Amino acid sequence: MSYQALKERVCAANKEINRVQLAILTWGNASEVDREAGVFAIKPSGVDYDEMTPDDIPIISLETGEKVEGKMNPSSDTETHWHLYRVFEDIGGVVHTHSTYATAWAQAHREIPCLGTTHADTFYGSIPCTRPLTQAEIEGAYELNTGKVIAEHFEKNGLKAGELPGVLVSSHAPFTWGTNAMKAVVNGRILEEVARMASITQELNPGIGAVDQYLMDKHYLRKHGANAYYGQN
Amino acid sequence: MSYQALKERVCAANKEINRVQLAILTWGNASEVDREAGVFAIKPSGVDYDEMTPDDIPIISLETGEKVEGKMNPSSDTETHWHLYRVFEDIGGVVHTHSTYATAWAQAHREIPCLGTTHADTFYGSIPCTRPLTQAEIEGAYELNTGKVIAEHFEKNGLKAGELPGVLVSSHAPFTWGTNAMKAVVNGRILEEVARMASITQELNPGIGAVDQYLMDKHYLRKHGANAYYGQN
Amino acid sequence: MSYQALKERVCAANKEINRVQLAILTWGNASEVDREAGVFAIKPSGVDYDEMTPDDIPIISLETGEKVEGKMNPSSDTETHWHLYRVFEDIGGVVHTHSTYATAWAQAHREIPCLGTTHADTFYGSIPCTRPLTQAEIEGAYELNTGKVIAEHFEKNGLKAGELPGVLVSSHAPFTWGTNAMKAVVNGRILEEVARMASITQELNPGIGAVDQYLMDKHYLRKHGANAYYGQN
Amino acid sequence: MSYQALKERVCAANKEINRVQLAILTWGNASEVDREAGVFAIKPSGVDYDEMTPDDIPIISLETGEKVEGKMNPSSDTETHWHLYRVFEDIGGVVHTHSTYATAWAQAHREIPCLGTTHADTFYGSIPCTRPLTQAEIEGAYELNTGKVIAEHFEKNGLKAGELPGVLVSSHAPFTWGTNAMKAVVNGRILEEVARMASITQELNPGIGAVDQYLMDKHYLRKHGANAYYGQN
Repeated sequence: MSYQALKERVCAANKEINRVQLAILTWGNASEVDREAGVFAIKPSGVDYDEMTPDDIPIISLETGEKVEGKMNPSSDTETHWHLYRVFEDIGGVVHTHSTYATAWAQAHREIPCLGTTHADTFYGSIPCTRPLTQAEIEGAYELNTGKVIAEHFEKNGLKAGELPGVLVSSHAPFTWGTNAMKAVVNGRILEEVARMASITQELNPGIGAVDQYLMDKHYLRKHGANAYYGQN
Repeated sequence: MSYQALKERVCAANKEINRVQLAILTWGNASEVDREAGVFAIKPSGVDYDEMTPDDIPIISLETGEKVEGKMNPSSDTETHWHLYRVFEDIGGVVHTHSTYATAWAQAHREIPCLGTTHADTFYGSIPCTRPLTQAEIEGAYELNTGKVIAEHFEKNGLKAGELPGVLVSSHAPFTWGTNAMKAVVNGRILEEVARMASITQELNPGIGAVDQYLMDKHYLRKHGANAYYGQN
Repeated sequence: MSYQALKERVCAANKEINRVQLAILTWGNASEVDREAGVFAIKPSGVDYDEMTPDDIPIISLETGEKVEGKMNPSSDTETHWHLYRVFEDIGGVVHTHSTYATAWAQAHREIPCLGTTHADTFYGSIPCTRPLTQAEIEGAYELNTGKVIAEHFEKNGLKAGELPGVLVSSHAPFTWGTNAMKAVVNGRILEEVARMASITQELNPGIGAVDQYLMDKHYLRKHGANAYYGQN
Repeated sequence: MSYQALKERVCAANKEINRVQLAILTWGNASEVDREAGVFAIKPSGVDYDEMTPDDIPIISLETGEKVEGKMNPSSDTETHWHLYRVFEDIGGVVHTHSTYATAWAQAHREIPCLGTTHADTFYGSIPCTRPLTQAEIEGAYELNTGKVIAEHFEKNGLKAGELPGVLVSSHAPFTWGTNAMKAVVNGRILEEVARMASITQELNPGIGAVDQYLMDKHYLRKHGANAYYGQN
């Protein structure tokens, strides 16, 4: 059986979405790319997390976006994942959920400002919110265009996917990414907690603004990059 | 024993209400109809979910609304379920809970606008809130009149039960429905999560309105109807 | 061993407070009275729920308020329970917790208006909030005076303990009661859920007022009194 | 193996942070000092709570702040803990988390006023919020300076660490302390619950102020000090 290890990791990451309660029912999907093999693996559409096995995980060509292995239909959001892998060349896993607070910010059409160190430890700047898709974009290749509107936002604003591992799609919900599928789930958990804290913070002090750049630098850079000193490496 | 499979499904759906925490104590009830047999099965009144067995489930005549089998009293809300089965001919299961956020919207006398795709995936438009019942309606056949005020709202506003599988009864709590009892529970979970997200969204952006019709169309129709492409069918 | 059954019920009710998460740490206590024997049993002070056994439960004289049996110190709130048993002659159990939403309403010095049927099913009118205790009342017999200010509020406002099984003590937290200790815990759960729903409702519609008297009558009286038709009796 | 008992207590306290959900992922750390031995033990940096064993716990010199035993890197927040042990001579354990509501108050740059007895039972006055650190303090010895700004706030305002076992670091998150590591965790739980209640209270009554001094005295002093009468001692 080919791609066995990749399917196992993607199956485990999808179950983790459910275990940490980022999604009820089937409202979330995780994928992971194998760039050498030129494929990514993704959740099958509408399948319960409890019943999912690695054999159910479809394999998609990174070049064509078409399924190359697997009996089940891939997630209806497959083309969004596909586009993100093509434009963000340093990411290895993508996760989409409808986690409560992140989705509420997306529905409110608001980016999440960096209000503290919890945010700055993982997201180097505001967590962006895309522009609404146009009627033509929605009625056309909707899922592909969702990926395109994310990429457009990052490009226009000079943002780096490696420093901002997540985004809110306006009127929809969050996408997060990471070096593999499980790390993309972890970033989804962090986004949800940061969104929840930010919502409470804004009730307690509606006028509060983003933290100073030097505090954000300190926290982001003590965990990421050449001079990081967090953890055991 | 007659209606055994129906009683087992209804018993399981009632326990599911409790397992997914849509109700504490005995604050929720599920029913399912067998239209060929001309009956529906419903939770007994005031019985703990943990102790309930299929044998406890009363069977009610769809024609008369009277109990035709079972030792226990049916739910005090039985006549509401009965009326919904009679007026919404394409539904197979009904669930009533006092889930927290949906009940809060009902108490606030507000319909829940469609603020995002999570909502549009299941509810094709605002989740309606009925008018208050009059004193005469409350002091008369209260539970039957609750069903009637729901039906009146759908009829007056040209709403379809198949496209809007739930409603808020003003000053009271939600009812949801589906093709069977368990799917009505799933719609109750979705309603509660949508109500929670909408409440947070409105705090973050009080002026936000419903999503564009074409986004609602896209999400509802990719999951429902002839051109649906979500899931494995 | 005397009062064994009473101690077992009170021990179980205290553990239930913790199991249903009405209190963290040791922040809640339950008691139950045996009016024929002229005593009540109550939680020992500062003891973990997990480690508590029926043997730890002190027995207090209803006449003198003094401990008549047991090695451990009774709850520091014992005199509040004692006073409530003396003035509310039809109650059998009392529970005090610091459950989150009920405590927030108490801290806000606000009674909880009856905003829906969830409330009316158990509390026949607003859940009252006492006046603040005076400096003399606090520096004197504080716990006894807490009971007195509750009784004063009910008497002055013509409220009946049998119809309103709970109260908010201003700047402090809720007390609930019932026909026995376990039913007082159930009423504590209902109060907490009603307080949570009311808080969300007020955010969604700050101007919403109490429900009509006839809706409150309908719901309270279908569950309580001579013409009740809820449950199996 | 030296310091075995100390390492076991610190390992247990760190696992407790996770068990009671004060931190997700690795977002919290606990330490405990042995003043006779002149050392403290602290969580290793970036290690999962589930996998942590007492052998992983580094030992730090109270005099130099340097690691004196252990293979793993200590928490990146070690110098904050170190400074607190040096300036607050009567504390035995320190805990840092990013618990949701306490962090939101820190992000809002607001101290938590004493709004009720739940607060007064443990915190004798407002839970303070430090001034923001300056750019020089952040770019210099950041973690040490975090300890210094806490100490500065207590000294300038005449606050006693023994009466106020916690603080909010502006734009960051809470630190709590106690007579040992486990009691510092307990104070972290209380701070989080108090922060949550205060946030709800302020929504229900934005103008509410702190409780009267005599109510705060009553509750704090019935649990703490020479005339305490709570518990079994």
